[in-house]
Amino acid sequence: MTEQMTRIALARRPDGMPVPEDFSRETAPLPRPAEGEVLVATEYLSLDPYMRGRMQDVKSYAPSVDIGGTMTGQGVGRVLASKAEGFAKGDRVTGMTGWASHAVLPAGELRKLDADVSPTSALGVLGMPGFTAWTGLKKYGRPEAGQTLVVGAATGPVGSMVGQLAKLAGMRTVAVAGGAEKCALARDTFGFDATVDHRAHDDAEGLRAALAEAAPDGVDIYWENVGGKLLEAVMPLMNTHGRIPLCGTIAWYGGFEDVADRLPGFMRSMLVKRLQLTGLIIFDHWDAFPQFLEEVTPKVKAGEIAFLEDIAEGLETAPQTFISMLQGGNRGKQIVKI
Amino acid sequence: MTEQMTRIALARRPDGMPVPEDFSRETAPLPRPAEGEVLVATEYLSLDPYMRGRMQDVKSYAPSVDIGGTMTGQGVGRVLASKAEGFAKGDRVTGMTGWASHAVLPAGELRKLDADVSPTSALGVLGMPGFTAWTGLKKYGRPEAGQTLVVGAATGPVGSMVGQLAKLAGMRTVAVAGGAEKCALARDTFGFDATVDHRAHDDAEGLRAALAEAAPDGVDIYWENVGGKLLEAVMPLMNTHGRIPLCGTIAWYGGFEDVADRLPGFMRSMLVKRLQLTGLIIFDHWDAFPQFLEEVTPKVKAGEIAFLEDIAEGLETAPQTFISMLQGGNRGKQIVKI
Repeated sequence: MTEQMTRIALARRPDGMPVPEDFSRETAPLPRPAEGEVLVATEYLSLDPYMRGRMQDVKSYAPSVDIGGTMTGQGVGRVLASKAEGFAKGDRVTGMTGWASHAVLPAGELRKLDADVSPTSALGVLGMPGFTAWTGLKKYGRPEAGQTLVVGAATGPVGSMVGQLAKLAGMRTVAVAGGAEKCALARDTFGFDATVDHRAHDDAEGLRAALAEAAPDGVDIYWENVGGKLLEAVMPLMNTHGRIPLCGTIAWYGGFEDVADRLPGFMRSMLVKRLQLTGLIIFDHWDAFPQFLEEVTPKVKAGEIAFLEDIAEGLETAPQTFISMLQGGNRGKQIVKI
Repeated sequence: MTEQMTRIALARRPDGMPVPEDFSRETAPLPRPAEGEVLVATEYLSLDPYMRGRMQDVKSYAPSVDIGGTMTGQGVGRVLASKAEGFAKGDRVTGMTGWASHAVLPAGELRKLDADVSPTSALGVLGMPGFTAWTGLKKYGRPEAGQTLVVGAATGPVGSMVGQLAKLAGMRTVAVAGGAEKCALARDTFGFDATVDHRAHDDAEGLRAALAEAAPDGVDIYWENVGGKLLEAVMPLMNTHGRIPLCGTIAWYGGFEDVADRLPGFMRSMLVKRLQLTGLIIFDHWDAFPQFLEEVTPKVKAGEIAFLEDIAEGLETAPQTFISMLQGGNRGKQIVKI
């Protein structure tokens, strides 16, 4: 009997928020590595908001997933079989396995993991989300001691890292998160100086009043993960020469509010306050990944940087877990154990 | 009999596009300089789009003009009387005279002009507009040979300088201007490689098609003077890692289009293409003004940089000339001869 693998495929393109029917579960014979390739048994799969974009058939920074194709994603696993120098059976590696129990990957697209850091950290605090926070803050946020940072989705793997790195740089840090539990997490686990619960405010005005209290000296860096009413709330609070690293607009993934054109007012704020907005896609910056690991790994090992992981069980739970994550159902970095 | 001076004051705050009744003409006794001050007789007054902002009573990068206060503005004139070292009667100087026949200014706020450049050039190509173009292009545009620049209001004093400096840096330059005459100017006088007449296109789609033809390799720098449908037309044509120096949004000075919210789509483009948008207010950058003069003055003297001036006659024409300029009625840098 041939061994089987399981994978989650894109069944159809979602309209707004994805639903379970947009995904399908497929089995196939276990693939074999060719020369220079490695067969990996996935242990952990990373779920990230960017995957929502890959489900669309629009020109974007990376190719869409085809209908019937395996959902894209980073995984951590063990080498089952290797036809590549430098990789041996049993090695723990990370790479773009996709939402699949097994994957064959070229050796050049795999990275061996340190034995003394937890395997899941390679997907979060020491993986793409952590690297995103570190890169965007350094290059486009340019933290200055004594200034104020606001970040939405603040307990997420990017937001929590942004807050902690800004705090280490001497900034006042303000977390925006959904619900009292997440606000407590932001304060107690991630060390934010102040928190704002966006669920407690229906409109941008209410949210703005709460933010103004949390950021009495205004906002110098707004890390944009969210869009929507948070962006609208923050803009009037921005200080002159503020920076806005733009990492995502999760509030708009499911559709747009029916409001009058906000672009003229936005552009006016950008001009009058001489703000800088820079789009950040982490795939442009891999060159700096070794520097990131060198700088941040010791801080994680020493416990100076906290991180949270939510681990769901079983590849078959990935679609529902992903949908729940897009709706804010996770606490920390969302991972699926396979 | 006491000598008199004339000034144009703000009579009331405009609602949308200014009208002549928003201004009033006042006379007053000629002021006398105190110790350290200089009395200047204004010869030429600069009219610039930023003055529209000063007429509003909103928090901005510079104080509003008070009702009854003299309209702000840069002038060139002759020293009539000096109580400051370094300035003597007859010297030609420039400073913030306002819309007035005479002004008393502290010596530190005046600059003596070279005798061998035309006095009006200190208000345009070698003044604030030229310096704005030079600064924004260098710091936020970052020209690269072989790439493409698009600029709106391309025959204006900022746009024409942006185009010429980008061309000197080896870029393909595309002018957007209103009407066949301005397009010819952009091509023949300012050396743009291609022109697009925005008046020939009612909507963003038509404008975009024309721009796509003029910029077949996409747009790497969009110099934002305009906003409105031009911004909407350009965004889908932006190349990855494009830069948008934001200098003004003249299309929105008179009011906004009644359209659905364009902010989500704008932010998506900024993210997906990793664009950078930076607000530019030239008043932040005066430190570099000597460097600008040193670099650009020889090019102007050598005729390597072309410039155009529209000179209206008489201080009393300033309000109507200003209104006409906001509506695109000028060809070059708008100046009033007093």
